[in-house]
Amino acid sequence: MSARRAVCPGSFDPVTNGHLDIVGRASRLYDEVVVAVLINSTKDGLYDVSERMDLLRETTADLPNVTIDSFDGLLVDYCKRHDLPVVVKGLRAVSDFDYELQMAQMNHGLAGVETMFLSTNPLYSFLSSSLVKQVARYGGDISTLVPPVVAKSLAARFRDG
Amino acid sequence: MSARRAVCPGSFDPVTNGHLDIVGRASRLYDEVVVAVLINSTKDGLYDVSERMDLLRETTADLPNVTIDSFDGLLVDYCKRHDLPVVVKGLRAVSDFDYELQMAQMNHGLAGVETMFLSTNPLYSFLSSSLVKQVARYGGDISTLVPPVVAKSLAARFRDG
Amino acid sequence: MSARRAVCPGSFDPVTNGHLDIVGRASRLYDEVVVAVLINSTKDGLYDVSERMDLLRETTADLPNVTIDSFDGLLVDYCKRHDLPVVVKGLRAVSDFDYELQMAQMNHGLAGVETMFLSTNPLYSFLSSSLVKQVARYGGDISTLVPPVVAKSLAARFRDG
Amino acid sequence: MSARRAVCPGSFDPVTNGHLDIVGRASRLYDEVVVAVLINSTKDGLYDVSERMDLLRETTADLPNVTIDSFDGLLVDYCKRHDLPVVVKGLRAVSDFDYELQMAQMNHGLAGVETMFLSTNPLYSFLSSSLVKQVARYGGDISTLVPPVVAKSLAARFRDG
Amino acid sequence: MSARRAVCPGSFDPVTNGHLDIVGRASRLYDEVVVAVLINSTKDGLYDVSERMDLLRETTADLPNVTIDSFDGLLVDYCKRHDLPVVVKGLRAVSDFDYELQMAQMNHGLAGVETMFLSTNPLYSFLSSSLVKQVARYGGDISTLVPPVVAKSLAARFRDG
Amino acid sequence: MSARRAVCPGSFDPVTNGHLDIVGRASRLYDEVVVAVLINSTKDGLYDVSERMDLLRETTADLPNVTIDSFDGLLVDYCKRHDLPVVVKGLRAVSDFDYELQMAQMNHGLAGVETMFLSTNPLYSFLSSSLVKQVARYGGDISTLVPPVVAKSLAARFRDG
Repeated sequence: MSARRAVCPGSFDPVTNGHLDIVGRASRLYDEVVVAVLINSTKDGLYDVSERMDLLRETTADLPNVTIDSFDGLLVDYCKRHDLPVVVKGLRAVSDFDYELQMAQMNHGLAGVETMFLSTNPLYSFLSSSLVKQVARYGGDISTLVPPVVAKSLAARFRDG
Repeated sequence: MSARRAVCPGSFDPVTNGHLDIVGRASRLYDEVVVAVLINSTKDGLYDVSERMDLLRETTADLPNVTIDSFDGLLVDYCKRHDLPVVVKGLRAVSDFDYELQMAQMNHGLAGVETMFLSTNPLYSFLSSSLVKQVARYGGDISTLVPPVVAKSLAARFRDG
Repeated sequence: MSARRAVCPGSFDPVTNGHLDIVGRASRLYDEVVVAVLINSTKDGLYDVSERMDLLRETTADLPNVTIDSFDGLLVDYCKRHDLPVVVKGLRAVSDFDYELQMAQMNHGLAGVETMFLSTNPLYSFLSSSLVKQVARYGGDISTLVPPVVAKSLAARFRDG
Repeated sequence: MSARRAVCPGSFDPVTNGHLDIVGRASRLYDEVVVAVLINSTKDGLYDVSERMDLLRETTADLPNVTIDSFDGLLVDYCKRHDLPVVVKGLRAVSDFDYELQMAQMNHGLAGVETMFLSTNPLYSFLSSSLVKQVARYGGDISTLVPPVVAKSLAARFRDG
Repeated sequence: MSARRAVCPGSFDPVTNGHLDIVGRASRLYDEVVVAVLINSTKDGLYDVSERMDLLRETTADLPNVTIDSFDGLLVDYCKRHDLPVVVKGLRAVSDFDYELQMAQMNHGLAGVETMFLSTNPLYSFLSSSLVKQVARYGGDISTLVPPVVAKSLAARFRDG
Repeated sequence: MSARRAVCPGSFDPVTNGHLDIVGRASRLYDEVVVAVLINSTKDGLYDVSERMDLLRETTADLPNVTIDSFDGLLVDYCKRHDLPVVVKGLRAVSDFDYELQMAQMNHGLAGVETMFLSTNPLYSFLSSSLVKQVARYGGDISTLVPPVVAKSLAARFRDG
C-alpha cells in the first residue's frame, strides 16, 4: 500500500518552525516523507530553490525518513510520477481554509491524490515565511520562529543585502 | 508503525453518503479503519447506538479493513486504549473549521493523537445527518444523500413514528 | 415566467427592521413577494405564528405586492405547491454563510428552487430577533431596531410577562 | 418593472463551467441577462477582452436571452447607463464573501443597484479561471472544468505560447 | 477620564487559563478591571455564580486592581450603572468573531459602550470552559488548561457527582 | 501607567470616514493617540507620506489629543521607541481577522505590545481606501465615504491625473 509515503509541498522561503512542526509530525505518521519545494518561475524569492533545499536538509537532518526535493508544474503530476498518494499540509487559520480545500478537491478530482490536513501547533499559528522575512529585515528577534541555522542565514542575508 | 490504523469518530445518526465518502477514502489510506460511534448520554438521537452501528456495518460491508465500534468518554482515551494514533475527519465548510481545529489541537496536546482532515467531496458539502432527517421527516427525496438501506430505514421510521 | 414571484421565509419572532429591509427590497425586485413564517413545532417562540403574521401584515401594509403566509414542513415543498421558484434571503455575516449556502444547495438539488441572497444593510448587520428580545426583556431601547408597532408589542409582552 | 433584466459581471479570462452554471441559472430567473466583461487596464489577462467575449458568445449560444458586452469604469455606472437594476453573482466560498458583500453594499449605497448572490453548484466550488489556467499550462486535464471550445483554445494557447 | 476602568464579562464556569491570560493583560492596560460573571437564569452551570466568583477571586488574588462581581440583565446597563466605559474580551477564533462583533456594535449603538478585543494567546486558542469540563468529567489531564485550584475543584466535583 | 497612550497605524492613502471613526473613538479612550502612517517603500500609493499626513492633520484637527506621525520598519520597534504600549485597530470583517490576529499575536510575542481591536461602525464596514480611490477615479460620489477635504483632493487628483 503506497499510502505510507507522503509529500509536504511548499515554497519554504525559508523553512520556519511551523513547517518543521508539520514535517516532523508527518514523519511519524508515514514511512517516508518528501518535502518538495515548488519552483515558481513567476515569483522571486529571497532564497533560490537550491538554497531553500539546503536549509531544509540541515533542519530535517535528524529525521531519517525525510528527503528533500523540488518540483515544477502541477503537484498532482509530481505525485503521480513519484508514487506519492498523499499530500500533508498544515492548516493555520480560516484564511488558509478555502484555498486549501479548493486545491485539495481539485487534486483529488484530477488525479485521486488525497490531501491530509494537520492542525498547526497553536504556537506557530501566526507564523509564515513572509512574516519572518519582514521581521528579520528590520533586525527583529526571530529566534523563536525559525531554527538557528535559518536565523543566522537571514541575519547574514539582510546584513549583506 | 501504528500510524497505519485510524479511527473515524462521529454520531452517525444515521450514516450519510458524506460519511461513507470519508470512510471509504480513509480505508484506502490506512491498513485498518475503525468507525467509532460516540455514545452521548445527554443527547437523544433518532437511532440508538446499536442501530447506528448496524447501519454502518451494512453500508461498509464492502470495505474489508473497516470495523465498527462505539465509545463513551474522551476520544483520546479511546484512541490510547485501542492503539489508534490517527483520527480521520472530513471538513465540509468553514463553520466546521474552528471547532474541529480546536478539538484536534486539544487531542494532540492531551495525548499526542493526530487528526488528519480530508476535504469533503463537494457533492456532499451540504450534507449532514440532521438535514437528512429533516428532509426525510417530511417525505422529501433523500435517495442521493444516503445509501438505499438508510433511505428505507428512515422512511419506515417516520412512517411509523 | 414564474420567476417574478419570490418567497422570504423565516421565523420572524418578531419581525425586525432588518427583515423589513430585505422584504422591501425584494418587493421592488419581484412582482409578488410572499413572506412565509415557518411553523416549527419543536421550538417555542415568544409570539405564536398568527401573532407573528399579524405584526408582519401591519409592518408591510405599505407594500401592495407583499402577502403574509405560514408553512409547515420543507420550504421546497411549500415553494412547489405555491409556484414560488425563488427564495430571497439576507446575508448578514460569515456565520450565516455556510448554513445558508448548504440549505440553498440542498433546495436547488432537491427541487430546482433557487435562493437569491441580498447583502444586509450594514445598519442592520448586528440585528436578530433574539438580540431584540434580549434587549427588550431588560427594558433596553429597541426603537431603532424594530418598527414602532413591534416595539410597543414587545414592551407590553415583557411588562405583562 | 426593470428588475427583469440582470447583469453578470466578471473577468471571464476565460469562462468556466462555474460561470456558465451561474449565467444559465440567471437566464431562467430574468427576462434578459447581460454578461459584462470588465475591462481592467492595469491587469494583463491570458485572453484580451474581445477573445473573452467570443468564448462567452460561443458557450452561451443556446441561451437566447443572454447577450455579451464589456464595460470600463464602475459597475454601477454601467448598470445605470443600461437600466440594469440587478447584478447576479455566484458565491463559492467564505473567502469570496467579505469582498463581495462589501462591493454589494457599496453598489447599493452609491446607486441603488441590488446584487443577488446565487450559491455556486458544489461541483464547481473549487473552480476559478486562474486554477484552470494553471492546470492547462502544464497539460493537465481540464475537460470537466470548462466547455470543449475553451479547453481547445487553452490547449492551443499554451502549446503555441 | 473614565476609560481607565474596564470590565471583563463572561460565564466563567469555571475560569480557565485563557480567561486569566485576558484578565491579566487587561489589568496591565487599565487602572481597574472588574471581572463580571453573567447570571443567566435559563442555563444551568456546573458551578453556581458564587462558586465561580470564589474561584475567580482565588485565581486573581495576585492582581490588586482586579475585582470580581456578577450581573443580571444587559451588559450595557451594568456598564452604565458602574461607570465602566470599556468592555475587554478575548477573540479566539473566527467562530467567535461574528457574534462578538454584533454584540459590540449593538452595545456601542445602545449605550456608547466600547468593546476592545484582545487576541487570545495562541496557547489557549483551543480552550473553553465547556471543553475543560468535558475533559475533566472523564478524568483527563487538565493541568495545563486551568489553574491548580480549579483543577482540584473540578476533580472533586466529578468524583463526588 | 503608559497604557494611556495608543497608536493607530495604517497606510491612510487617503484617510476615510472609517479611519476617522476609529481614531475618534480611540481619542476618547486614551489620553494621547498617535496616528502613524506606514512608510512602505515597495508599494506606490496615490498620495505620498507627507500628503497623507497633511490630510490626517486637517481631518483630526478637532481632536486635541491626536498627533500625526509616520514610521518605517517594524511597528513594534516604533512602539518601543515612542513608549506606545497599545495599538488600536478597527476590525471590519472576517477577512481582516486572521491576518490581524496573527500580527497582534506576533507583536505581543516579539515585544509585549498589545493590540486592541474595535469593531468598525457598520456604516463603514464596506469602506477601504482602495475602494474609495476606485470610485473616485471614475467620478463616482464619495461624499459619504470620506471627509470633504479628502473628497476635494481626490477629485483634483483624478481630474489632473
